[in-house]
Amino acid sequence: MRRERDKIKIIPLGGLNEIGKNITAIEYKNEIVIIDCGLKFPDEEMYGIDIVIPDVTYLVKNIEKVKGIFLTHGHEDHIGALPYVLKQVNVPVYGTKLTLGIVETKLKEHGLLSIVKLVCVKPRDIIKLDSMSVEFIRTSHSIADSTAIAIHTPMGVVLHTGDFKIDYTPIDGCVADFARFAELGKRGVLLMLADSTNVERPGYTMSESTVGETLQKIFAKATGRIIVATFASNIHRIQQVIEAAEKFDRKVAVSGRSMENILAVAIEYGYLTANEGTIISIDAINRYPADKITIITTGSQGEPMSALTRMAASEHKKVNIVEGDMVVISASPIPGNEKLVSRVINQLFKKGADVIYEALADVHVSGHACQEELKLIHTLIKPKFFMPVHGEYRHLKQHAELAVRLGMQKKNVLIGDNGDVIELTRSSIRKNGNVVSGQVFVDGLGVGDVGNIVLRDRKHLSQDGILTVVVTIEKENGSVIAGPDIISRGFVYVRESEDLMDEAREIVKNALKECEENHITEWATIKSNIKDALRLFLYEKTKRRPMILPIIMEI
Amino acid sequence: MRRERDKIKIIPLGGLNEIGKNITAIEYKNEIVIIDCGLKFPDEEMYGIDIVIPDVTYLVKNIEKVKGIFLTHGHEDHIGALPYVLKQVNVPVYGTKLTLGIVETKLKEHGLLSIVKLVCVKPRDIIKLDSMSVEFIRTSHSIADSTAIAIHTPMGVVLHTGDFKIDYTPIDGCVADFARFAELGKRGVLLMLADSTNVERPGYTMSESTVGETLQKIFAKATGRIIVATFASNIHRIQQVIEAAEKFDRKVAVSGRSMENILAVAIEYGYLTANEGTIISIDAINRYPADKITIITTGSQGEPMSALTRMAASEHKKVNIVEGDMVVISASPIPGNEKLVSRVINQLFKKGADVIYEALADVHVSGHACQEELKLIHTLIKPKFFMPVHGEYRHLKQHAELAVRLGMQKKNVLIGDNGDVIELTRSSIRKNGNVVSGQVFVDGLGVGDVGNIVLRDRKHLSQDGILTVVVTIEKENGSVIAGPDIISRGFVYVRESEDLMDEAREIVKNALKECEENHITEWATIKSNIKDALRLFLYEKTKRRPMILPIIMEI
Repeated sequence: MRRERDKIKIIPLGGLNEIGKNITAIEYKNEIVIIDCGLKFPDEEMYGIDIVIPDVTYLVKNIEKVKGIFLTHGHEDHIGALPYVLKQVNVPVYGTKLTLGIVETKLKEHGLLSIVKLVCVKPRDIIKLDSMSVEFIRTSHSIADSTAIAIHTPMGVVLHTGDFKIDYTPIDGCVADFARFAELGKRGVLLMLADSTNVERPGYTMSESTVGETLQKIFAKATGRIIVATFASNIHRIQQVIEAAEKFDRKVAVSGRSMENILAVAIEYGYLTANEGTIISIDAINRYPADKITIITTGSQGEPMSALTRMAASEHKKVNIVEGDMVVISASPIPGNEKLVSRVINQLFKKGADVIYEALADVHVSGHACQEELKLIHTLIKPKFFMPVHGEYRHLKQHAELAVRLGMQKKNVLIGDNGDVIELTRSSIRKNGNVVSGQVFVDGLGVGDVGNIVLRDRKHLSQDGILTVVVTIEKENGSVIAGPDIISRGFVYVRESEDLMDEAREIVKNALKECEENHITEWATIKSNIKDALRLFLYEKTKRRPMILPIIMEI
Repeated sequence: MRRERDKIKIIPLGGLNEIGKNITAIEYKNEIVIIDCGLKFPDEEMYGIDIVIPDVTYLVKNIEKVKGIFLTHGHEDHIGALPYVLKQVNVPVYGTKLTLGIVETKLKEHGLLSIVKLVCVKPRDIIKLDSMSVEFIRTSHSIADSTAIAIHTPMGVVLHTGDFKIDYTPIDGCVADFARFAELGKRGVLLMLADSTNVERPGYTMSESTVGETLQKIFAKATGRIIVATFASNIHRIQQVIEAAEKFDRKVAVSGRSMENILAVAIEYGYLTANEGTIISIDAINRYPADKITIITTGSQGEPMSALTRMAASEHKKVNIVEGDMVVISASPIPGNEKLVSRVINQLFKKGADVIYEALADVHVSGHACQEELKLIHTLIKPKFFMPVHGEYRHLKQHAELAVRLGMQKKNVLIGDNGDVIELTRSSIRKNGNVVSGQVFVDGLGVGDVGNIVLRDRKHLSQDGILTVVVTIEKENGSVIAGPDIISRGFVYVRESEDLMDEAREIVKNALKECEENHITEWATIKSNIKDALRLFLYEKTKRRPMILPIIMEI
């Protein structure tokens, strides 16, 4: 019994074998601690889906054990599912000031602010629970106020790095807390879970401050307006843009809802500083000469509705791109967004703007540790067990190999999957069963009401459209009274395909006649006969397979 | 009159402001020469489209002038539209041996081989027409037998580089014909059109032979099967795999239809050599020990139906990935394919294979010239006028700027667009009007029968699905006899949304009742009333906007 109890369970509910929706449950005795609660953006196969959130059935079932959600930082893939998860698992949320500031804005939008308890912490704070305590440790990342989390148990320490990089010259001067990491490492860490995002990249990620140097050079030579697109949450990047603007005597205006939201939080909480009068309303930009203006905007990923995309397409109400504008895209395209970003760059160039992006200048650095930085953290912590997190399988695998190359025993390195129950003792780590996990689709107001069947239909519809076949039949004898009518959408240009449609109608008529002759009266059979005949005919004629939807009306 | 006549017209019908469907018409006096005839792969907004081909209305209208299609090389984006264009513009096709070999396979599949005249040329061959002559000049690219094309006119020479890189150590030993380029440059080139693909990359593209060195290292340490995925057309890459296999005493089998096709052509024509007995059937791989086997396969882009993707998903009939297999992805993901490739890499790793890809080793080089190579060709040719081709606007723009930095006058550099008529005299280049151009969608057997309306519908269907509303009404008095029935696809899980559907039916009933009460009998109005009521209701309930398709049956 004693032995049975003395296990820490690590239950990743998201973030493994995927980029996004990071959430890990750590369970010891009668307590569960949740680290992060992120969303994932839909991939191209998830037609019509707005966002993807983790399945937290396990937490709902064990709600009395759940002591809180502990946030490493304020990025969407770590906090974005909170408004949905908190509706099912309303527990206190712990995080640093900026992180909670961003969470607050989010909860306000969902009308949840009054019912959720937010607990603001500082680095080195330790939250004591019954059998565990949770410690926040400062790190560097592409958002301010990010932390690692150490969970202290009688069995040992579990350290989750969160997303991190090593930056000796961070913009806010707050270097990661190497001393504490070293101390923990010296005393012994039982398990480390570490960020695997950039494990395929050799060397080091450059310091955020190097981007500032590039920005200053760009500002020095620009003669018109400067428009900088970056992630709204990258406060340090924005700080550097403001500093460059001030140095070159420019005002700064902001465009894009998320940028305005986060800026308001960051300024209020003192994470962003600007001289009196530097920041002006976007409505005021035309009161100044072009060479006195900087605009900071969203849209660095070419997102269809974002401010920069609207500027590039001449659909922005306040900013019209003109010759002489200098646009700086201070970000990397996230895999999958390359074409969107490229479209925006092309449009901006065509409007006569000068466009500077990663391929042309060092206007971006990553927020994640490359190989040498990972080696540093492994070497400092020297954990007994290691579990790579935050990555697709390829990244987890490479990170596991990196750990082994640094001297860890293979059996002490475990690659997990979402839903795994990973049992940790002082001397072993192993998978033992699994819990419900997976992805829940959010589409409009619907959470979870779109599943694989609906998505399969949407995919089918997107490929070749739909043909609806309607026929009204007499209840008594099954004879056709009206129709068949065929209406198609997304299949062919109807006007240019009248013959095809006429022939299709004949095919349906024949199928109906055959049914009548064979005294087939069951609707399901009639429908499937119509479908089969039409499918064959259309495929032969067009090599396409539209969805066919036969509808029988009976009177 | 004399002056009016003495103009060369350059009419790009594809390949500008896009990657793909390269085709350029060059017109002088009563002759038109076409350079290349490529397809483009659909982007993610082109739902259900198989391929995109150029609109060649201009060539059809001027068919008596068209003297031939001259191919620079055998890549799909330069030859892929031939089967469609030749049906409308049946003119002789000129190209080098390997290029025509690939074209032949293609025409055979389309049943066109017997009706098209193919003319095989060698580098330095000159095809004399009435007022122009067309010269083929050897270049290096990621397919063997690639050429630039020089068109000699009494007004001067128009040089089209085709796709090229500078490779001093090409696999076949056939270095680009620098002597001829230099000679042309010395005598004076009026206009150069040059490949802009890699203009954003500084430095040089590495030689193809460097990949061979990496492959040899990989082969030296592999202990199981080696599976190499690359582009089927990259004969030189395949040659290097074969050489590595032979060096390490391995057999070579091939998987993937396009790989088998091109290999057959390449071996038949002597572009690919292998020792007797090296190449074995894919059916024979299990007769040899794992460390004696190499498999060359398609699927380096993670294409859903390709051989490697099927292997990774355990759907390949002949090759089952096992622990110890070494998979080499000898290609770069084309922008837009990153996620597909990543999925394949993850699956292969999960199956226990070792996977080597570009992020981990130098297993690929580009086929296009980087900045320093472009500078070399500009410096050798020193054209009077320059027009960047083969790129999105960002590439064309950067290439134009590169030319200016090398000393060209701005007014002598022209960025064109598809459909532009660019008039060239001895002393000027300018746009003067334009012709019909654009993209024609191929979907199954349909060429051009899917246009923007159909695509818009497919997009709409893909986002939120469709609701079909059917009602049967009495012809005389418009009263409802049957229905309304509502059938949805791709909208919500019907079983879990019965209430919603019941309410929706009520909404439709009310709309119908209102129509009756107001004596509205026009179908169009009834339908639009149903649509409006339902759209409002559904958006309020779900924040989704499915397509709504009202159908009225009258008896």
